[in-house]
Amino acid sequence: MKQLIETPFTRRFGVDHPVMLAPMDKISDGRLAAEVARSGGFGLIGAGYGNPDWIEAQFDAAGNLPVGIGLITWCLLEKPDLLDLVLRRKPAALFVSFGDAEPIVEAARDHGIPTIWQIQRLDQAEQALKAGTDIIVAQGQDAGGHGMDRGLSALLPAVRDLTGPDQIVLAAGGLADGRGLAGSLMLGADGVMMGTRFWASREANGSDAAKAALVSADGDDTRRSSFFDVARGLDWPGEFSGRVVQNTFSKPWLDNPDGMKAAASDIQKTYEASDPDDFSVRALIAGESLDLVHDIQPAADIINNTVSEAARLLAGAPSYLVNQDRHA
Amino acid sequence: MKQLIETPFTRRFGVDHPVMLAPMDKISDGRLAAEVARSGGFGLIGAGYGNPDWIEAQFDAAGNLPVGIGLITWCLLEKPDLLDLVLRRKPAALFVSFGDAEPIVEAARDHGIPTIWQIQRLDQAEQALKAGTDIIVAQGQDAGGHGMDRGLSALLPAVRDLTGPDQIVLAAGGLADGRGLAGSLMLGADGVMMGTRFWASREANGSDAAKAALVSADGDDTRRSSFFDVARGLDWPGEFSGRVVQNTFSKPWLDNPDGMKAAASDIQKTYEASDPDDFSVRALIAGESLDLVHDIQPAADIINNTVSEAARLLAGAPSYLVNQDRHA
Repeated sequence: MKQLIETPFTRRFGVDHPVMLAPMDKISDGRLAAEVARSGGFGLIGAGYGNPDWIEAQFDAAGNLPVGIGLITWCLLEKPDLLDLVLRRKPAALFVSFGDAEPIVEAARDHGIPTIWQIQRLDQAEQALKAGTDIIVAQGQDAGGHGMDRGLSALLPAVRDLTGPDQIVLAAGGLADGRGLAGSLMLGADGVMMGTRFWASREANGSDAAKAALVSADGDDTRRSSFFDVARGLDWPGEFSGRVVQNTFSKPWLDNPDGMKAAASDIQKTYEASDPDDFSVRALIAGESLDLVHDIQPAADIINNTVSEAARLLAGAPSYLVNQDRHA
Repeated sequence: MKQLIETPFTRRFGVDHPVMLAPMDKISDGRLAAEVARSGGFGLIGAGYGNPDWIEAQFDAAGNLPVGIGLITWCLLEKPDLLDLVLRRKPAALFVSFGDAEPIVEAARDHGIPTIWQIQRLDQAEQALKAGTDIIVAQGQDAGGHGMDRGLSALLPAVRDLTGPDQIVLAAGGLADGRGLAGSLMLGADGVMMGTRFWASREANGSDAAKAALVSADGDDTRRSSFFDVARGLDWPGEFSGRVVQNTFSKPWLDNPDGMKAAASDIQKTYEASDPDDFSVRALIAGESLDLVHDIQPAADIINNTVSEAARLLAGAPSYLVNQDRHA
């Protein structure tokens, strides 16, 4: 008999499994988000910097399945028309990260759209809690793509201590299997958000070459830096860095930030001229959980395997315990 | 009736609780290590760079209680006399970190002394496993003091996948309570090593001013950098950084490594001239788990609280599960 994991997140959002798809820019398209929703998880379209036509097409692709959408806070704040478009599509939730999202939370609330606010530091969790967001995602530095420097081990329980039991809190960063889910529940989360593991899924919107590169790399190969923002000409606020699989193009610059800035124009030209599947130059955005990714799986299998493994671990957890008198 | 947590670590090393004291340089002295051992944990004297007289005094202070000792690998490799002294004192285990410790593991094995090899990356875990160390500690970047950039969320399960079930693996970095212990067990560990939480203990070898500063800081205030190695004139290999509570003295240099190196001599003079309890200049070495540290506790209470909370979480873990047919 199969067991489900129930948490305040699954109950309040009516999903079977406490597993959310990270809104990876372009990679988490309407098809992948819908497949995650169909499999009992919570799917988020990854709209990143926000292209209106692409967003409309992804909602269309997801069809009648309830999916949310994720965007970059500081971008969305600059584009009121984009926020209008997103709210008009009535997403299952609006996810935002990287900046003070209070005005977005308020606008979404006026439209009856739940919000998900991803934080990277404890002081950001205070902001998110104060704004009354529906879900706080605590993202550890292990995550692929943009983020900050704090890990999950202390941040996650600290966020829980801050919010009390009624706030829905999810964990993200370095989580790719049932161990990550069970461990996150013990640390105080109501579920997990996974990115890299779903990037290495059959449905993810990416090339076979990129997916093969994910399988062959591991967590040690990744590192946070601003190199690929410089290479792509993206003007990110300085407090955020991006974790990617570092390569021969990036490595010489990682410990030479001044030299990198001085050479930015040449770096950008080389980057733009390169083959999008040439990961000796291009950024392969992925997190430390590449350690746990050894194959490309259907998204449904990823969810089922994660939940089954976590259920087994949670069911077996009491076996660690012995009575003190037996021991003495 | 009180419950104990039993793991391969507690069984093989004959301790009541799967909790190890991190060998914090000077702070984990003979008294604190002995108190941890007396309370059913595993105590390690923190000998850092290795001062022979101090080491002898700490073993004497610990008396008949079985305590281990921890040193910096790259230092110990340069000092064969120090290794002889340490082995002659027959520690309960010899802990090493930061470098390839294979010759140390071999020498300890010849003396019947178990070894503990702390790793920060998956490739280092391969080295440690190959050398046949008795315990691998996977240290996340959340830890205070020296370390590297990887988090625990993926590294810990990846180390377990690498070693298989028979290797004893402990988790370290950002762990300060029962949630950290229970979460680490789910992620694949056999127990935890805690530093910062024990630094904020009554028995830790530090000033009241330092301990008060620990209580008032939180994880957001800490950051990894090499600044305080430069300030203290310590020549650490470049791959290791130190997490400390950053202060007005360090902050201007954190994003200016070239300027810092150029000003090293002035920085060192200011540092040496400062009051050891002036933490606007001095390094307050501590990890992200400061988020979870709100008071100074007796070491025995830290262990008991951690184990009781973890036992409660592990006992309650099956309550997350519901049968699918009931749900449908």
